[in-house]
Amino acid sequence: MAHLGARISHIAPGRVHIVLPSRPEVTQQHGYFHAGGTSAIADSAGGYAALSVFPEGADVLTVEYKINLLAPALGDHLEAVGTVVRSGRTLTVCTLEVYGVQGDRRTLVANGQQTLIRLDPARTGAKG
Amino acid sequence: MAHLGARISHIAPGRVHIVLPSRPEVTQQHGYFHAGGTSAIADSAGGYAALSVFPEGADVLTVEYKINLLAPALGDHLEAVGTVVRSGRTLTVCTLEVYGVQGDRRTLVANGQQTLIRLDPARTGAKG
Amino acid sequence: MAHLGARISHIAPGRVHIVLPSRPEVTQQHGYFHAGGTSAIADSAGGYAALSVFPEGADVLTVEYKINLLAPALGDHLEAVGTVVRSGRTLTVCTLEVYGVQGDRRTLVANGQQTLIRLDPARTGAKG
Amino acid sequence: MAHLGARISHIAPGRVHIVLPSRPEVTQQHGYFHAGGTSAIADSAGGYAALSVFPEGADVLTVEYKINLLAPALGDHLEAVGTVVRSGRTLTVCTLEVYGVQGDRRTLVANGQQTLIRLDPARTGAKG
Repeated sequence: MAHLGARISHIAPGRVHIVLPSRPEVTQQHGYFHAGGTSAIADSAGGYAALSVFPEGADVLTVEYKINLLAPALGDHLEAVGTVVRSGRTLTVCTLEVYGVQGDRRTLVANGQQTLIRLDPARTGAKG
Repeated sequence: MAHLGARISHIAPGRVHIVLPSRPEVTQQHGYFHAGGTSAIADSAGGYAALSVFPEGADVLTVEYKINLLAPALGDHLEAVGTVVRSGRTLTVCTLEVYGVQGDRRTLVANGQQTLIRLDPARTGAKG
Repeated sequence: MAHLGARISHIAPGRVHIVLPSRPEVTQQHGYFHAGGTSAIADSAGGYAALSVFPEGADVLTVEYKINLLAPALGDHLEAVGTVVRSGRTLTVCTLEVYGVQGDRRTLVANGQQTLIRLDPARTGAKG
Repeated sequence: MAHLGARISHIAPGRVHIVLPSRPEVTQQHGYFHAGGTSAIADSAGGYAALSVFPEGADVLTVEYKINLLAPALGDHLEAVGTVVRSGRTLTVCTLEVYGVQGDRRTLVANGQQTLIRLDPARTGAKG
């Protein structure tokens, strides 16, 4: 995510916002964000939202996601919002929204749904 | 939908609720609703929600949907809620939720996302 | 599945076919199969395909699936094919196809993708 | 796509391959490709596959896609394969596969499904 120039702008339990400023590396010739960047920050927002409801040191992986590209991804920056819908012992399901933000105007440009799996600390060697 | 015993319980512009009462034909041996019924009423709720924002006589078809089955579908009835997220000239995108309702208790048992296409009246012969 | 009148027509390791004959209960006024039936047998075909690569007594649940409805579901019967793409310790991913079969003619009417979770025998009480 | 360093490696009617070589910009600390890159080339492969069956000058947009991340995306390069399953007047549906390629070894790391819409030349100003 950092490699795109994106950063977390808001964290609450079960909800994380990620902001991706417009830069030549993530936009096309007409200033639209690449679909790849839109999807990447949506996926990341869901991943951090999933983590936000687990104890420190937990880790998750995206199992799958589905995203609808609703409108051209245009703006000073994109803002992705990941929200936990259900968090279980093994699987977490999040909804994903991405907004194009231009000054005061905020347009929904993509929405999606994501399934994540919590990694077993004993198997991954992660320290809980 | 009617063949399952389901009925529309609420219509507002861009949002439709469908109720499916528990019956032997739509449940398994332990009283859980079949996943097929859960998905069918979610799909229908989105379809009627899409129609609710078009002029009378318009018609839509489901292009695709994705659904997460979050919890056992248990209750006196299921309630599916379809909500229009974006409605364009050709395509409409809806979010789908299904709740298991037992007395006062309402549990989210499935959530999904759906894309629909509006049929061209000139091509289908439908009367607008 | 049995409640729809569907039956398994072919099982091989990692691939299961399910047939749903045309009957008034699963078709609309013009003889098209309901989308709910199409989805239900696709989901079941993937579920049985997932089971086919596990030891006897294993059990799986559908986590989520996504399906595209490609063409009107018409024919003497529908045939769903579920194929395991990857089977892990916890999760299995299948591709799903549904064909409308009319005599010698076989038309792809839907295709999809599905994630399933293997139930832990210790937790569910299932006998491995 | 070019901004990631990806390039088309194979085009046939209805099938396009895209290769993404491993580079620090698209990989993480352990050499795994970012999920964003995996998804981006899958989406592009489907888009070019959709275009490959249309007359020169046609244009398409991704409506939605769903992708399962099956295994760590590791290798000298990733290879995405987009295959048209159905191409209609308005919508095209593709299946997507991404392989991690290390020397002779080719591992499926992601698979997906995508819906695209053909842009109306009259509305977009594109020359058919």
